[in-house]
Amino acid sequence: MKAEIIAVGTEILVGDIVNTNAQFLSERLFALGIDMYYQTVVGDNPVRLKEACRLAFSRADLVIFSGGLGPTDDDLTKETVAEYFHVPLLFHTEIVEEIKQYLNGRYPLSNEKQAYIPEGAQILHNAYGTAPGIILEKNEKIAVLLPGPPREIMPMFQDQVEPYLKAKSDFVMESKVVRLFGIGEAKVGETVLDLMNGSNPTVAPYAKDNEVILRISAKAKTANDAKSMIEETRKEIETRLGEYIYGYDEQTMAKTTAALLLDRGLTVACAESCTAGRLTAALGDVPGISSVLSESIVTYSNDAKMKYLGVSPKTLQAHGAVSAETAEEMARGIRKAAGADIGVSVTGIAGPDGGTEEKPVGLLYIGVCYQDEVSVLKLQLHGNRDKVRQGAVMHGLNAIRKRILA
Amino acid sequence: MKAEIIAVGTEILVGDIVNTNAQFLSERLFALGIDMYYQTVVGDNPVRLKEACRLAFSRADLVIFSGGLGPTDDDLTKETVAEYFHVPLLFHTEIVEEIKQYLNGRYPLSNEKQAYIPEGAQILHNAYGTAPGIILEKNEKIAVLLPGPPREIMPMFQDQVEPYLKAKSDFVMESKVVRLFGIGEAKVGETVLDLMNGSNPTVAPYAKDNEVILRISAKAKTANDAKSMIEETRKEIETRLGEYIYGYDEQTMAKTTAALLLDRGLTVACAESCTAGRLTAALGDVPGISSVLSESIVTYSNDAKMKYLGVSPKTLQAHGAVSAETAEEMARGIRKAAGADIGVSVTGIAGPDGGTEEKPVGLLYIGVCYQDEVSVLKLQLHGNRDKVRQGAVMHGLNAIRKRILA
Repeated sequence: MKAEIIAVGTEILVGDIVNTNAQFLSERLFALGIDMYYQTVVGDNPVRLKEACRLAFSRADLVIFSGGLGPTDDDLTKETVAEYFHVPLLFHTEIVEEIKQYLNGRYPLSNEKQAYIPEGAQILHNAYGTAPGIILEKNEKIAVLLPGPPREIMPMFQDQVEPYLKAKSDFVMESKVVRLFGIGEAKVGETVLDLMNGSNPTVAPYAKDNEVILRISAKAKTANDAKSMIEETRKEIETRLGEYIYGYDEQTMAKTTAALLLDRGLTVACAESCTAGRLTAALGDVPGISSVLSESIVTYSNDAKMKYLGVSPKTLQAHGAVSAETAEEMARGIRKAAGADIGVSVTGIAGPDGGTEEKPVGLLYIGVCYQDEVSVLKLQLHGNRDKVRQGAVMHGLNAIRKRILA
Repeated sequence: MKAEIIAVGTEILVGDIVNTNAQFLSERLFALGIDMYYQTVVGDNPVRLKEACRLAFSRADLVIFSGGLGPTDDDLTKETVAEYFHVPLLFHTEIVEEIKQYLNGRYPLSNEKQAYIPEGAQILHNAYGTAPGIILEKNEKIAVLLPGPPREIMPMFQDQVEPYLKAKSDFVMESKVVRLFGIGEAKVGETVLDLMNGSNPTVAPYAKDNEVILRISAKAKTANDAKSMIEETRKEIETRLGEYIYGYDEQTMAKTTAALLLDRGLTVACAESCTAGRLTAALGDVPGISSVLSESIVTYSNDAKMKYLGVSPKTLQAHGAVSAETAEEMARGIRKAAGADIGVSVTGIAGPDGGTEEKPVGLLYIGVCYQDEVSVLKLQLHGNRDKVRQGAVMHGLNAIRKRILA
């Protein structure tokens, strides 16, 4: 099967947003073994959208549209595709009910537009917005219409479009993501170069913020065959890079660390300076975390470090707020204040100002106090304020994980 | 002038990288007042690249290519465009010298390919890589060939392509972004429908997470003329939607609220339950915030709410942790504990579990204590855990902002 993607939206053509949907869809289609030769972006214009539609269907069997399903007059994807296929739009009262439920009883008149669906189409439920998705099959061509916002399109594609596409394929594609932390992409690439040159399974590395990801993909007659091919490659990667692997698939660092805490029944509390709550918030992203995380304190000021964490004024004076000594006392202090099993501290210089020659922007200390023992990690990160703070969160989570596993 | 962008690279089609170059180029071309109706992505395949080239030039005067200028055999953009224009490639010894200089004296044989340039083309210097850029004009069509890596294409476009394009244009384009909170895209669309139907200035809405953005763009002989056209439309939008406007251009909600706090010299402290540090972290994203934010506390558990914030056990027992009464006591408590001007509290049910009929997932209370007076906002948000928590942050920031401005 050949596919194309058409992203609809003037906001992409004028550069207001990055077309991340195209990357998401490309990655998923590739994983399904579906070929793609072209991607197109077109504005909210019916003539040009129709032309893009015609061109894409002349080259491909499956065209996935993202965007243009909203309630406003310039949202035209559904109308244009229906016209292209010569299919009328029918009003669905059950969609009105869904929209009402989503909008808490409200139902602005303009949303009425979203309750019209091309005749004969399959309706895709939208759990995160008012625009339903659509699958329309006619004359051996398939149009899949999806909403533009990433948080709407992603679950809709994974939960509803992928099973549909998988059912149409006569082989199975499986893939597994290996997540590595503490090693660069170039080094990972060198280490698994021979595996990357294979054609089935394929191994492809990607550098994400502060981590490297290896995707292993295999094509086979059955899911089990594909999975065992993947497992063999995974074992080989583990042999070479095991010390850097922290998780697989959707197990992000936050999820991995949270799962360890929940599994062992270990409580944790954080004392955050430069991350200002981001470390706690990252743990807080994981449902159910409140059973092992009852409190954390953001202590930007020295006063707050003394008041809540009992950091000694002498330590602050002698070594400064960004020091191994302060990180240690913060970790001990939060553990004691919270009565938690593990106390974690982060103190550092996020920038853009505040750096000195001795303590440059990006300098970080992370303390972990467990069973009354504190280990402090000193790091020098690079990049802007956001990157330094995000890096601090990843290192903080990893430090908790390593300490539990030690 | 009409333009199109063609991004060349199989790595985009398989989802390995996001096409951020397209956004960069779109934004810059829009600012230059150059219209763009289509963008295309095509793989490293000579037949399909030539077809994409032919199609783009049939619709546009200017086609900008990114990628495919590298030294390897699958880099084909230059060869394909030269063939399309029926122009030979000529060898340039001065490019060999530049590459040698860039590579510190080394000159791998494969780089020889990069020293060939279509006859009659303008060569663009690459300060951050070995691939020179190219501007080729023929038969009133312009091809601009740029390297793929963002750090190479960005300076090359800004420093060398923009002056070239500006010299060809006889008008200027300006734009302004209006940021709205507390109103949906559909309602905004209804309210400014007549303005959205205008052609100069244009007004275009789009929904971001928890906010709606309107972009006003105007084209004129001078920047001043364009700006005053925009200002007239902005005033009209303000008249209709002023109560929802919180900022303009790059002034996100976090930046707007932080700027107000910094401007008024008001200190703030947060007591967070379901947001688990995200509200404080959002303020912490803004450089310099530590002069008005010295501490915050994450209090997931009732114990922590009592211990740090002095929430009364009776209140918790009578009304529960997610209640207006608890939110009020939390806001008072954090203000007092921190000795801050403003105390903010967030308590709610982020889900996916923990909801009841009486207190469903998405129920939130936000308290703001200022000058010893507390106002509590009750909200019912929708969506998954992440969306509820992100919405809580936006509402929390907005509540601080509103209270200061009240």
